[in-house]
Amino acid sequence: MMRFERETVVRMQHVDAAGIVFYPRYFEMVVQLIEDWFADGMGIDFHALHHVCGVGVPTVHVDIEFRRPSRLGDRLLFSLNLLKLKRTSLMLGIGASCRGEERLRLRQVLTCTSLGEAIHAVDIPADLRAAMSPYLHSEAAQ
Amino acid sequence: MMRFERETVVRMQHVDAAGIVFYPRYFEMVVQLIEDWFADGMGIDFHALHHVCGVGVPTVHVDIEFRRPSRLGDRLLFSLNLLKLKRTSLMLGIGASCRGEERLRLRQVLTCTSLGEAIHAVDIPADLRAAMSPYLHSEAAQ
Amino acid sequence: MMRFERETVVRMQHVDAAGIVFYPRYFEMVVQLIEDWFADGMGIDFHALHHVCGVGVPTVHVDIEFRRPSRLGDRLLFSLNLLKLKRTSLMLGIGASCRGEERLRLRQVLTCTSLGEAIHAVDIPADLRAAMSPYLHSEAAQ
Amino acid sequence: MMRFERETVVRMQHVDAAGIVFYPRYFEMVVQLIEDWFADGMGIDFHALHHVCGVGVPTVHVDIEFRRPSRLGDRLLFSLNLLKLKRTSLMLGIGASCRGEERLRLRQVLTCTSLGEAIHAVDIPADLRAAMSPYLHSEAAQ
Repeated sequence: MMRFERETVVRMQHVDAAGIVFYPRYFEMVVQLIEDWFADGMGIDFHALHHVCGVGVPTVHVDIEFRRPSRLGDRLLFSLNLLKLKRTSLMLGIGASCRGEERLRLRQVLTCTSLGEAIHAVDIPADLRAAMSPYLHSEAAQ
Repeated sequence: MMRFERETVVRMQHVDAAGIVFYPRYFEMVVQLIEDWFADGMGIDFHALHHVCGVGVPTVHVDIEFRRPSRLGDRLLFSLNLLKLKRTSLMLGIGASCRGEERLRLRQVLTCTSLGEAIHAVDIPADLRAAMSPYLHSEAAQ
Repeated sequence: MMRFERETVVRMQHVDAAGIVFYPRYFEMVVQLIEDWFADGMGIDFHALHHVCGVGVPTVHVDIEFRRPSRLGDRLLFSLNLLKLKRTSLMLGIGASCRGEERLRLRQVLTCTSLGEAIHAVDIPADLRAAMSPYLHSEAAQ
Repeated sequence: MMRFERETVVRMQHVDAAGIVFYPRYFEMVVQLIEDWFADGMGIDFHALHHVCGVGVPTVHVDIEFRRPSRLGDRLLFSLNLLKLKRTSLMLGIGASCRGEERLRLRQVLTCTSLGEAIHAVDIPADLRAAMSPYLHSEAAQ
């Protein structure tokens, strides 16, 4: 089982008046991580996903725990693997830590959909499914 | 049991390339709703909370389902009540709908903390607790 | 000459670690003001602008002075009028103040364009031009 | 004269419903560039600037031209140099291009200030001034 990892630095744009990350900004980091996983981990960037595959992967469920606050300049190590891979959806397991201290953990479900006015679930394209498989958590795969 | 309600319009700043709300932006709306609940529903704005009460209410857990996409110009009716009120934390139940169609629902746990460098949980101040009580869900209160 | 005015409250999402508005957030407020001017001042919301008129109004130039900082909870009074109205572009004059103290002032040029892959300037539609005219600054109109 | 350069990728979080960068998001990229210039170009990160030097560098003026739109996945090359270096303020010249096509150019004035409730201009600390000097544009230095 592979994990996809990426480091992100806490910026001015992320922190609130208390000097800690304003929690909606963590989701921008999470979306960046997922974009990087598609582009760099699987070789399919979001532009290609939308314009070549003709599908989107909107998020339908997030369950997130914020364990410890993060501050300006913290270097957050994000880590992603795949907990479930179904016909039209996938569940990601994502965590972030800084100097070994866990900051957050989350499970996120994305559904594969058509684009345009009438959005509906579609099968995950075979190429995309194949590219995802190495990231599938071994226990989940059994 | 009281509910706190507030309408929010989907803006250019909220939508992505697919023309639907980029999900991290929903959390900005949720934080605004909570700010408005404090200021308008309970008469304690965040400036007073921080500078008079000397406490913050960072979010420690969110479980959110995105049920249907929202588009530019949609008027979202947000609704908030209090599912649990403990010694140092509270759980909110929040939903948003548009023309009767549910768009999202979430449960969010906030912890009452000290401010400054060493953040730790503190009791919810008595005044704040009293102001919150009318929003406590009746089943939860039993 | 008419002015379009709208009040905006400084929110958690707007302020930085120094407790003052993070300047990129002011532009979100400015875009909201312009959206409100289109929808409420002229009766043409951005959804209609894009989907009915088939044009966009991307910003091509901004010159902004930040005069005094704004803090969480400040109620900012934004005011907009039209400094120039040309064939394919318009220049807005926008200011924001709080309790009579000026916070920022800016001039912003928007160009009327086609939508889609190949963006190019187009004439401002006649209906839109007529709706804008009352906001044209009298000296500019001479 | 040195230039400070940094590449930024256009992300989902940056684009609007028309699929092009929502202009307020460019300012988040500009602030990141300036943070990186401080941290990597001059060896003084913003945390040190605030907590060690005890000063901030709020922006007081921006004059920006958006020349061509940018789209999801575009790799923007940002470039910064110093147009003016005065006693309490500095003017930056910043540009961004993609595959040789200019996307934006701006001049931004930052003032060196005290932190806290009563913000006022202070001299740029000598160490910071020395670190900035190599980036001063040669014509400006004459």
